[in-house]
Amino acid sequence: MAIEFINDSAGLGDAIGFTTAAVAADIREKGTDRLDLTLVCSTPPCTGAGVFTRNDVKAAPVRVCREILDTGKPLHGFVANSGNANACTGEQGLDDARAMADRAAAATQLPHNSFLVCSTGRIGRALPMPRILARIDQAAAALAAGPEASRKSAEAILTSDTRPKTCTARFTWQGRTVTVAAMAKGAGMIQPNMATMLAFLCTDAAAPVALLHTVLAGATHRTFNAITVDGDMSTNDTVLLLANGASGVNLAATPAEARALFAEAIEQVCACLAEKIVGDGEKISKVVEIIVRGARDEAAAERIARAIGNSLLVKSSWYGEDPNWGRVIDAAGYARTGLVEEKVDMFYDETPVLDHGIAQNQHLARWKEIVKQPRFRITLDLRLGEGMFRLLASDLTEGYVNYNKSE
Amino acid sequence: MAIEFINDSAGLGDAIGFTTAAVAADIREKGTDRLDLTLVCSTPPCTGAGVFTRNDVKAAPVRVCREILDTGKPLHGFVANSGNANACTGEQGLDDARAMADRAAAATQLPHNSFLVCSTGRIGRALPMPRILARIDQAAAALAAGPEASRKSAEAILTSDTRPKTCTARFTWQGRTVTVAAMAKGAGMIQPNMATMLAFLCTDAAAPVALLHTVLAGATHRTFNAITVDGDMSTNDTVLLLANGASGVNLAATPAEARALFAEAIEQVCACLAEKIVGDGEKISKVVEIIVRGARDEAAAERIARAIGNSLLVKSSWYGEDPNWGRVIDAAGYARTGLVEEKVDMFYDETPVLDHGIAQNQHLARWKEIVKQPRFRITLDLRLGEGMFRLLASDLTEGYVNYNKSE
Repeated sequence: MAIEFINDSAGLGDAIGFTTAAVAADIREKGTDRLDLTLVCSTPPCTGAGVFTRNDVKAAPVRVCREILDTGKPLHGFVANSGNANACTGEQGLDDARAMADRAAAATQLPHNSFLVCSTGRIGRALPMPRILARIDQAAAALAAGPEASRKSAEAILTSDTRPKTCTARFTWQGRTVTVAAMAKGAGMIQPNMATMLAFLCTDAAAPVALLHTVLAGATHRTFNAITVDGDMSTNDTVLLLANGASGVNLAATPAEARALFAEAIEQVCACLAEKIVGDGEKISKVVEIIVRGARDEAAAERIARAIGNSLLVKSSWYGEDPNWGRVIDAAGYARTGLVEEKVDMFYDETPVLDHGIAQNQHLARWKEIVKQPRFRITLDLRLGEGMFRLLASDLTEGYVNYNKSE
Repeated sequence: MAIEFINDSAGLGDAIGFTTAAVAADIREKGTDRLDLTLVCSTPPCTGAGVFTRNDVKAAPVRVCREILDTGKPLHGFVANSGNANACTGEQGLDDARAMADRAAAATQLPHNSFLVCSTGRIGRALPMPRILARIDQAAAALAAGPEASRKSAEAILTSDTRPKTCTARFTWQGRTVTVAAMAKGAGMIQPNMATMLAFLCTDAAAPVALLHTVLAGATHRTFNAITVDGDMSTNDTVLLLANGASGVNLAATPAEARALFAEAIEQVCACLAEKIVGDGEKISKVVEIIVRGARDEAAAERIARAIGNSLLVKSSWYGEDPNWGRVIDAAGYARTGLVEEKVDMFYDETPVLDHGIAQNQHLARWKEIVKQPRFRITLDLRLGEGMFRLLASDLTEGYVNYNKSE
């Protein structure tokens, strides 16, 4: 009863009963002809759960998703666009997000309030609604089950990403195969909690809303909420999970063992997408795994990991492949959790850097080799308690600054 | 009874009774012949106060300064070096910092524990003590009162700064002139609270320790602790204030009016040095004043101001002279103080950007002019209460990342 994991899968269409379509709606500007709108549909009704940005400034589609989920009605899919975040757009933005969801339902002849809506892209601009509504109709007419449509759907949600992000996990329960298929986008404004990150998971298991929510919230905490590219939390971060039951497996009627497999499949999918998002951060050259352990509690470990992973000086030194542990311990210290310098052990991969706060300079040559790798690990053991946190972070490059000088 | 303010003054020697010397101790490496050690001395005994980094990881000289201040004995000056922070150096570092302070006292034939000690520079390396001790003797022999020695002292504390930072404030009380003279260094790892920032204030007023501490702590809170270059708080941040009474004005025996003038002089000096530190941040091209008002309390206003001032996306857009208010409101939102988007007013200088959360796009051309300036102001009014905070921040340039790739 192992989980079969498919990296870079076709995407959402891998789950039975989900059809997809992607169209070019010229949302950035007229004439780009880039795929920028996708419709995902399940004719069998779905239960669903969502995890959203905790930014005080929430984009209109985030608010509308919550409204729709709060109705508790069966869901049939979602519509998502890139190129415009529909954030900071006032009442008009809310009307537009509702109009997108309504049109998706109408165009598929499915019930009102059964489609969720997501947007990602530039903040503070009105959506080109006439084009968008017409293209939702076009997408509804083009919904298809195959991998080709699914791949286009994963492409349509991208903004400054350089590649689509998909994966699929499968397990078998009593002769029936349950699939969790997923896609995501990331790139900039990435320190989810959540960021300009959209992730969509579709499964053909049937599951009660409460189970979906518990599983999704736990997995999100340990994966999407444990990554940082630039420390900027977006207005639009959304993770959605839809479950349509088409596999014939109903998790409400199975033993705990099946639910554990399902939770593990969800977590593997989320972990894979989170890693892909960091690895494709804007103009990054490295991914660094930061593990803080031995903290007084998890919150203290998390504060230290985020201080390190968001420090401009630390991130610049990673870019320069400089094993500058002084900047790492400085950042750990300004997280102000009460760490005791004389107790701290630090490692690059498995190689000691600090032993009870004392530099192990005899390993300098090895440190330099480690930080040259495209991915390496920094571990801090504070020796104060049992608290632990793991964060995936990227470096900071001149390319990032140049890329984000203007939009 | 106004305050006379001298920007880019000669420095500490402007206060009566303070002598200075600067020498080259080759602290970075042998043969650089760069001024990197300064001794500042007052033969009349001083009262003193210090404000230090709140980083959990405190450099040895920070700990030793506290030990010496805690003795409550009269002070006679300080010794400071650049090129090496004497941070994360264990017991040896503490011994070395104490040895520097002891040698300064011995070389000037003044009492033990009457000299403070500061270091700034690279973290995690042992100081070259034999050279340093010999150069402290040399500096003691060279102590002089004039502006030339004073200017060299301001030069000797610099690291990646491109220019010395000095100013002097004076006021007259009952025919006697009180001088507050000061110097500082900054550049990187700057978000004091406090950062790799050293600031030294010398005054020829006499004042009780409690008064010095109150005045210095208040001024530091509103000036040095309200700036950010890169959001990194250092292990060594120190602000010291010494008062030797050589002017003949004793603030313990004057009415409140004189103490208010003194506090104002200290605050003006601190504000001037803080502005100089941001303006000379590593490879910056702009200084942006962020004012958050109408918050529920000062703490909420400060969190929002720091989120904006430390956002990589916001700082990159300043560098690119892009009036990207979407990133500003996004950062304000992820400070998670409970702001209400529909109430927020925003301004670039005096020009409206958001009115109750709605973009005032008719001013786009004016916004672009404003953000092209080397210094401009962003004001957010949250319309929720009376809380206010002002932060001086710099932009983020490709040059910063390149400069900090390695040390």
